[in-house]
Amino acid sequence: MHFYKRTHNCGELRISDVGRKVTLNGWVATVRDMGKLIFIDLRDRYGITQLVVLSENNPELTQKAREVKSEFVITATGLVRVRENKNPKLPTGDIEIVMEDLEIINKAELPPFEIVNELEANEEIRLKYRFLDLRRPILQKNLLIRNECYQIIHDYFHTNQFIEIETPIMMKSTPEGARDFLVPSRINKGKFYALPQSPQLYKQILMISGFDRYVQIAKCFRDEDLRSDRQPEFTQIDLEMSFVDDNDIMSISEGLFVALWDKILGIKIDTPFQRMSYYEAMTKYGSDKPDIRFSLELSDISKYVANSGFNVFDNTIANSGIVACINAKGCAGFSRKDIDSLTDYAKKYGAKGLAWMKFINGEINSSIAKFLTESIIEKIKIEVKLEEGDLLLIVADEWTKCYSILGALRLEIAHRTGILEKLRNKYSFHWVVDFPLLEYDTEAGRYVAMHHPFTSPKDEDIPLLDINPLKVRAKAYDIIINGAEIGGGSIRIHDQEIQSKMFKLLGLSQEEAMSKFGFLLNALKYGAPPHGGIALGLDRIVMTLTGTDNIRDVIAFPKTTSGLSLMDGAPSKVDQTQLNDLGIRLLNES
Amino acid sequence: MHFYKRTHNCGELRISDVGRKVTLNGWVATVRDMGKLIFIDLRDRYGITQLVVLSENNPELTQKAREVKSEFVITATGLVRVRENKNPKLPTGDIEIVMEDLEIINKAELPPFEIVNELEANEEIRLKYRFLDLRRPILQKNLLIRNECYQIIHDYFHTNQFIEIETPIMMKSTPEGARDFLVPSRINKGKFYALPQSPQLYKQILMISGFDRYVQIAKCFRDEDLRSDRQPEFTQIDLEMSFVDDNDIMSISEGLFVALWDKILGIKIDTPFQRMSYYEAMTKYGSDKPDIRFSLELSDISKYVANSGFNVFDNTIANSGIVACINAKGCAGFSRKDIDSLTDYAKKYGAKGLAWMKFINGEINSSIAKFLTESIIEKIKIEVKLEEGDLLLIVADEWTKCYSILGALRLEIAHRTGILEKLRNKYSFHWVVDFPLLEYDTEAGRYVAMHHPFTSPKDEDIPLLDINPLKVRAKAYDIIINGAEIGGGSIRIHDQEIQSKMFKLLGLSQEEAMSKFGFLLNALKYGAPPHGGIALGLDRIVMTLTGTDNIRDVIAFPKTTSGLSLMDGAPSKVDQTQLNDLGIRLLNES
Repeated sequence: MHFYKRTHNCGELRISDVGRKVTLNGWVATVRDMGKLIFIDLRDRYGITQLVVLSENNPELTQKAREVKSEFVITATGLVRVRENKNPKLPTGDIEIVMEDLEIINKAELPPFEIVNELEANEEIRLKYRFLDLRRPILQKNLLIRNECYQIIHDYFHTNQFIEIETPIMMKSTPEGARDFLVPSRINKGKFYALPQSPQLYKQILMISGFDRYVQIAKCFRDEDLRSDRQPEFTQIDLEMSFVDDNDIMSISEGLFVALWDKILGIKIDTPFQRMSYYEAMTKYGSDKPDIRFSLELSDISKYVANSGFNVFDNTIANSGIVACINAKGCAGFSRKDIDSLTDYAKKYGAKGLAWMKFINGEINSSIAKFLTESIIEKIKIEVKLEEGDLLLIVADEWTKCYSILGALRLEIAHRTGILEKLRNKYSFHWVVDFPLLEYDTEAGRYVAMHHPFTSPKDEDIPLLDINPLKVRAKAYDIIINGAEIGGGSIRIHDQEIQSKMFKLLGLSQEEAMSKFGFLLNALKYGAPPHGGIALGLDRIVMTLTGTDNIRDVIAFPKTTSGLSLMDGAPSKVDQTQLNDLGIRLLNES
Repeated sequence: MHFYKRTHNCGELRISDVGRKVTLNGWVATVRDMGKLIFIDLRDRYGITQLVVLSENNPELTQKAREVKSEFVITATGLVRVRENKNPKLPTGDIEIVMEDLEIINKAELPPFEIVNELEANEEIRLKYRFLDLRRPILQKNLLIRNECYQIIHDYFHTNQFIEIETPIMMKSTPEGARDFLVPSRINKGKFYALPQSPQLYKQILMISGFDRYVQIAKCFRDEDLRSDRQPEFTQIDLEMSFVDDNDIMSISEGLFVALWDKILGIKIDTPFQRMSYYEAMTKYGSDKPDIRFSLELSDISKYVANSGFNVFDNTIANSGIVACINAKGCAGFSRKDIDSLTDYAKKYGAKGLAWMKFINGEINSSIAKFLTESIIEKIKIEVKLEEGDLLLIVADEWTKCYSILGALRLEIAHRTGILEKLRNKYSFHWVVDFPLLEYDTEAGRYVAMHHPFTSPKDEDIPLLDINPLKVRAKAYDIIINGAEIGGGSIRIHDQEIQSKMFKLLGLSQEEAMSKFGFLLNALKYGAPPHGGIALGLDRIVMTLTGTDNIRDVIAFPKTTSGLSLMDGAPSKVDQTQLNDLGIRLLNES
């Protein structure tokens, strides 16, 4: 098992090393046998170096070189010389190694797919052979960027006097929102730990303990029915500060993004980031995480079409709904088929239908022409700045739904017209603030927290808690990059009376509140400082920095959307004795 | 909920700030009402600052100050002035703040114990009120040192081109050694994830993927019957390198300890650390993790006492056992009672009895005098360097047991004679190497891996795998600080045939091996580089650096030895619906 250790890695030799005798270790990327010359590209994490065997003088070495196949691990010793056909694409492209010795350290079977960036192989095969997939330069680059992120994050928060503290992975189950993953306790049979959905309660406890500034790159877990962009375990940059207001948290967060974008992409981003109220985000862009790199803004035209005689509009407005629209600039050329497909798209988001109006060849053309008088049309034209060539798509519905449908249409139009494609590598950062503290869940027949139950109401809205809870705004903020919610946080409640009132509003009895969150309520009694924080999605940040849409491309060992790890076969069946030890049995075996 | 934000923290004001108007936020540590003057010590993570209220001129402020109690959170505004009675123990001890305004941000109930370092409160109360316990300066200091460790670790490995990669927390269950904690899968009912006992297999996969140098501060989990110095979840510094030998891993590890001891304690440690074979460690010190800060070495005296006529010795030697002893220097004064209690102590480690021999007042005195001829005594005296005043404790048993008992006695004697106490703040670092690859488990009737099944045998011992497996030494190394095993690692097997042979030796059938570790065996086929690594116990390192014997003093939210989190009540019962969702039920409810 002895082998000759490398003197250099495969990415570092340069023209200044010519004449040196070197030894490299690495993987064979390619072998090209040209008869008199055999070229081997040797690869490691640091790069690729070309090896050359001059076959005429070295029968033994030549034979060894001809045994070598892709992905073999070898040791190569030889002299660095100037390369005849330089490869400007490789940092090592000016040189090659004339081999004097070659040793096969380990053989490799033929891989099920090539180790290259552009790959036909389906993702399932790639995940099963993740150890080979991870050799592809693009995945190596992604994980190297992820590593750079860690270092920038550690440095940034350390410099800003944050202290890194590990919170437990096995904690108390306090399901609220998503489902907890549970861990049965063997020593305390019949009881369970839960994996944290976030370290929320612990970081608040740390503030009450006086740690002042906490940060952790924290693993979090949610047992959800998975969507393609979610993982059952994910990573967040979790922080909390004492004696601060929302501006402090936003400003410290902005500094991190400045550092990340600067050091990884060499892009300077301006601060402070734009702030937009939830109301503005919804009414202008139809989303609480709008992509503001392009306009295509929305307009409420209820007052113009009220009493137009069009039943759908009239009824909606009579039922406190609204009629609003998006001006799809320059889309008047969309065919009936195009508009039908947009209508189908809108229906996926719950639209009952889609009205439209075009301004083309100086004329107005509309699906609801007969209900629109000249005067109405004129008012709408002014309101939405309708110009020749524009297409208006109109939705009538309850406030939130109407804007959400239009927001989805807005993105779809930006996609179809190539606007999004042109915006690749453009980054916009902004905050959405002034969220409602509560939403009303008609199904559950109770209020639910829009962020979480520990979020503080705005000081001036506290009196509304008793009389009009839905009007209460929260000290909450979400950070949005390019239309993706990258993180969110809030100033927390540090007053136990307000916290109790909040639990009550959420329909938690005193007993339930104590049994679930008693330790926080208890801690709040012993001198809690004003505090707040934020959690930023690390996986999503790395996706944005590496330009991938696939979360599995930035995680070393991801799971499928069904929660499977195809490489190792987790989750798997376990021995009956393991279950007996834990005091549990499977339901279907009872 | 508005409050005046601090201009400074409670640890930063100095004589150069005199005359400044400042605002501080913090916790009231003490209030001393002297009538004309009221002194308040205000505390935060950064320090303590003295506030003073001149009560004569400020009736309103005085009243507020008199409302304030311990652990209230307040805002204090005033002028910095020179303190009359300076306190040289505090960095802020030269100044005080003459208060102009005081605002109570949050009240506090009377804490169940005082927030001071020296505490009568039992640990159970402290853990229940962990949010208060963590306010104690000593725990704050411990966690700040732990934070410094993280930063030094991140920096050190980043500088050395390691990349930080997160491995999964929900992985495949491959119990080997300790029990796994299991996580039932809801989406894949009847199947389970396991929490990692270590990221061992994943880091080997990362080497096979070509990442070359991996590091992670990794959470690990073991479902053990807990001992006082163990936690069900613990943290290790986990690393792995490719194209290296054992010297490379030891050397990179040593560099980390140099950095930690230098930056945290200001102590320079010499490298390379001493290396000692397992055989030497056992025969000299009776331990595979010897404390070598003091000598008290052991000696094998089998050959001198063979055929002495003392049945116990004779039979032991006839059964391939040994007779060995420790020279307890200067302990000849131990009374019969002392020796009896040492005998009881030895019995806890499995000793059947303890023979002894004293050299006192020029004479030999022994529990087995009648079996020891002058000639035997003379030979023993020379072998163990017995001098006037020494006490010899003699054990006869099977090799490993005999030395383990003597090793335990060695530590106990060092404890009783005050040797250990004198060594506080002395640090010794060394490696134990050349461990046997395998042990024979008589109960299970099979070989078990002394480290783990992925550890490589020494090249020169590979032929012994087939003929005398117990003689095979491993490429394994443990790092010992002051007699505590701080970490261990090995060069791994990168050859799939040797890995298969190893599994076979361990009694794993081909099917079992494939079902448990198939993904590793599979990966080894596709070009695995030589690789190795180590895992260092972070909790234990921080314990050593902070000088505590209690692991719970270096973890923010520890669990008791029964795996309970007393603060939040984890583990706890969960709703039946949660269990139904997971497809499991409790055994005792069937």
